[in-house]
Amino acid sequence: MLVLITYDVNTETETGKRRLRRVAKQCVNYGQRVQNSVFECVMDAAKCREVKNKLEKIIDKDKDSLRFYYLGNKYKSKVEHIGAKESFDVEGTLII
Amino acid sequence: MLVLITYDVNTETETGKRRLRRVAKQCVNYGQRVQNSVFECVMDAAKCREVKNKLEKIIDKDKDSLRFYYLGNKYKSKVEHIGAKESFDVEGTLII
Repeated sequence: MLVLITYDVNTETETGKRRLRRVAKQCVNYGQRVQNSVFECVMDAAKCREVKNKLEKIIDKDKDSLRFYYLGNKYKSKVEHIGAKESFDVEGTLII
Repeated sequence: MLVLITYDVNTETETGKRRLRRVAKQCVNYGQRVQNSVFECVMDAAKCREVKNKLEKIIDKDKDSLRFYYLGNKYKSKVEHIGAKESFDVEGTLII
């Protein structure tokens, strides 16, 4: 299934900037970055729980937020892109 | 239906910062801001075309990107939030 992960990390402090880097670094292991704070991950429920657990441990729940959107298996018609960086095949390699 | 709008606007220049403000200002008219660059909009296809046209005219397609995710009508189970600012009922008022 396609899972969209979006995040807002409060980067007012150095520790916040560190959290942001750590969140992004984890997400890279699970999917494709399609925008600065948006990742598309094709994964099963177990992998999804795994990344969720990891990200929950990184963020400061009082300051940062994570959102997960479950787009199912028939997701290709559910996503539309306009503008720069139309460059990702979430199941494959980076197409530039 | 629920439409998720995410955007990346290149704010390296003053005109970029202006585009970002204009994109956000338009999105506010169509839905709820759930993260910095993520809006959830409950709207029909006509409204969706409308906002898409407006946003397309604002962005610089070489530098900025917009993504639209169509989550259909049964979206409540498809969205999960962790952390700060779990504060939005997309069909209703702001819940704090």
